[in-house]
Amino acid sequence: MSAVVKNAKTMYEVFYIEKENNMKKNVIVGQSGGPTAVINCSLYGVVTGGYSDARVDKVYGMVNGIEGFLKGKFLDFRKMKEDGSLEKLTTTPGAFLGACRYKLPEDLDDPVYPEILKKLDDLNVGYFCYIGGNDSMDTVSKLSRYAAKTDSRIRFMGVPKTIDNDLVLTDHTPGYGSAARYVAETVREIVYDAAVYNTKAVTIVEIMGRDAGWLTAASVLAREEDRKNPGYIYLPEVDFDTVTFLEQVKRGLEVQNSLVVCVSEGLHDAAGRLICEYDSETGVDSFGHKMLAGCGKYLERLVRERLGVKVRSVELNVCQRCSAAMMSETDRQEAVQAGAFAVRSATAGETGKMVACRRKTGTYGIDCVLEDVNLICNQVKKVPLEWIINDGSDLAQAFIDYAYPLIQGSVAIPVGADGLPAFIKR
Amino acid sequence: MSAVVKNAKTMYEVFYIEKENNMKKNVIVGQSGGPTAVINCSLYGVVTGGYSDARVDKVYGMVNGIEGFLKGKFLDFRKMKEDGSLEKLTTTPGAFLGACRYKLPEDLDDPVYPEILKKLDDLNVGYFCYIGGNDSMDTVSKLSRYAAKTDSRIRFMGVPKTIDNDLVLTDHTPGYGSAARYVAETVREIVYDAAVYNTKAVTIVEIMGRDAGWLTAASVLAREEDRKNPGYIYLPEVDFDTVTFLEQVKRGLEVQNSLVVCVSEGLHDAAGRLICEYDSETGVDSFGHKMLAGCGKYLERLVRERLGVKVRSVELNVCQRCSAAMMSETDRQEAVQAGAFAVRSATAGETGKMVACRRKTGTYGIDCVLEDVNLICNQVKKVPLEWIINDGSDLAQAFIDYAYPLIQGSVAIPVGADGLPAFIKR
Repeated sequence: MSAVVKNAKTMYEVFYIEKENNMKKNVIVGQSGGPTAVINCSLYGVVTGGYSDARVDKVYGMVNGIEGFLKGKFLDFRKMKEDGSLEKLTTTPGAFLGACRYKLPEDLDDPVYPEILKKLDDLNVGYFCYIGGNDSMDTVSKLSRYAAKTDSRIRFMGVPKTIDNDLVLTDHTPGYGSAARYVAETVREIVYDAAVYNTKAVTIVEIMGRDAGWLTAASVLAREEDRKNPGYIYLPEVDFDTVTFLEQVKRGLEVQNSLVVCVSEGLHDAAGRLICEYDSETGVDSFGHKMLAGCGKYLERLVRERLGVKVRSVELNVCQRCSAAMMSETDRQEAVQAGAFAVRSATAGETGKMVACRRKTGTYGIDCVLEDVNLICNQVKKVPLEWIINDGSDLAQAFIDYAYPLIQGSVAIPVGADGLPAFIKR
Repeated sequence: MSAVVKNAKTMYEVFYIEKENNMKKNVIVGQSGGPTAVINCSLYGVVTGGYSDARVDKVYGMVNGIEGFLKGKFLDFRKMKEDGSLEKLTTTPGAFLGACRYKLPEDLDDPVYPEILKKLDDLNVGYFCYIGGNDSMDTVSKLSRYAAKTDSRIRFMGVPKTIDNDLVLTDHTPGYGSAARYVAETVREIVYDAAVYNTKAVTIVEIMGRDAGWLTAASVLAREEDRKNPGYIYLPEVDFDTVTFLEQVKRGLEVQNSLVVCVSEGLHDAAGRLICEYDSETGVDSFGHKMLAGCGKYLERLVRERLGVKVRSVELNVCQRCSAAMMSETDRQEAVQAGAFAVRSATAGETGKMVACRRKTGTYGIDCVLEDVNLICNQVKKVPLEWIINDGSDLAQAFIDYAYPLIQGSVAIPVGADGLPAFIKR
């Protein structure tokens, strides 16, 4: 068989032979990096896509990604398929399989590569799907390159996932829509909360995203027709200047009592120094360590000190990536679609690719397409500078048009006997 | 008329005379203190209750509470009644009328009292409803006592509202159920988020409630059948000891990799010193001010320093009180009921009372009853010590039985053209 395959000239021929031989292979899927509200939707897409594919026999899951798999940790989805619980994945946040942050060695001659391939061969795996962000695509890139080098027939596919929306070559990334919805909805609620008193006050909301400001930018969607709040939005794509910031806040307070400002955790000055590191110049905590609060906390103190107004900072923190309650239905569907497309592409012979979202023209919708994973891993897609306006303090309509469809639709999360969301655990 | 009223012997006679004269009076309602998810539901209850009462003509709202009213700021709900937008109040967080933090003088001979009464008389107000917590009940107490002293016929009623659940003489307080649901649901999501990596890690969730731990206690509702997380819960009702805390965390990490701990912002040691003030001994921020992070942040550093494990702290912050997405339907209905009962009691001649919730026996439900507002204001109801178990680190089943019904039911929030919750503004 392997000789025949090696001599085959085209993909078509390879599959023709495979089909002839009626050789079913197994799927294995893993999750890696930080969780999102819909990472388990992509898992659901891979698993159900696998089971509905005539070329697939079993579907396995790596527990704690490639790191756990190397330690022999994996599971078989058969029981969940049989008891009908797979669907619950689509309403469960976190990473059902567990994740890892594990970077494979650059050197493809490292012994870890044959070790992984042997473990996959032992399980009769033909199709490997890895759900994650930049670092996970790096894993897919390395494994697919090693497989090519060694004539392995295993196909390696990447399924995009990140709340940061920073993967290149895709219109957007599953996980972003739900996180963006969380940010928009929560900032709107904070705007209403902050407006209750009739005194000058500033509320600073710190939003995730160290290198790219996509998630912070989504706070503009919270703004209502009166155009007042959030008044200013600062992304890490633009150098942050505290003098300009204070002037803008001062101006904002002249037109309204309650000013809400959204800042990215990754704000930095022109020298590249993070704003959240400013305090460490002087501050030492009770353990003798240099103080490192978030940039929201730093800016809170700056505003209080310099403008003498009431000020509060709110760090949205992990809720941005784990809120099932504010999941976007659009995001959920696309995450499932991306997972299913990955396994379908793998069984069709594709390898070393990431599923990408291509936006249709006209009415919103996406097509799943494939992009070379080697061109994606370790790259960062930033918010285009032309979408950042008003001296780096606001977003253009083009961004709103881009992000608006991604947050649409809400999802009914099943409720358990305790009246709270009923999630599924492995 | 006033002479007749003064000579009247019983409430019944007063109303008989009033009815005979067919003298309709107006209602005025205000909101005070921090907002909750359902404070506008109580407003809705007062306004619709007023309009459906034959003894009521107009319904006014004080803008920014008694403080704004003194500056002449109020509105008439007529337009909202006519355009059918009142219902939107029941799905809008924040305080629709705006709030204030304004304490009336202790001395009832202060000129502010006749000033307020005159303003109310000028508007032909007969029924005054104030929605708020301890401080707002103090306002109701003082105004009703001043009215009694001066033979004013205006009735003053308090409608309870607080996320802290710290009002005495009521089973619970509208606003608590929704905030408790937010805490329970969010902590459950955080537990799923924190479990994704296969490494020892502690997540500390800081929850509101300075003097009473009701809201922090609600995090126990997030715990699933496996009884693992949240592993420990600390309330301000019990003196906090960092040595015991570290021992408990260490023990918790022996049985599970991911340990979630919930702490009240008001934790203090046996000497009464707030844990969040510990840092100020040594820390000075870059503005030369003593450092004051939250107690979650302090405990995060303590755990990192002493146990050397991965640790993160999450401060739930204002989202606890302003999340419409996690509103409890039970809480919403009870808040409306309390508002309607307040205005009905006022027009029936009651004054100087707060509406209280009395729990029915058997299947969960409440009756609204009246309690003397003078016995409520400036008191704090704490979590009973017998409900706090395991060396002050957990809650007894009795608390779960108490809190469980209050968080039940979710509310569909209307969505606007932008796909986000459509709230109402004045």
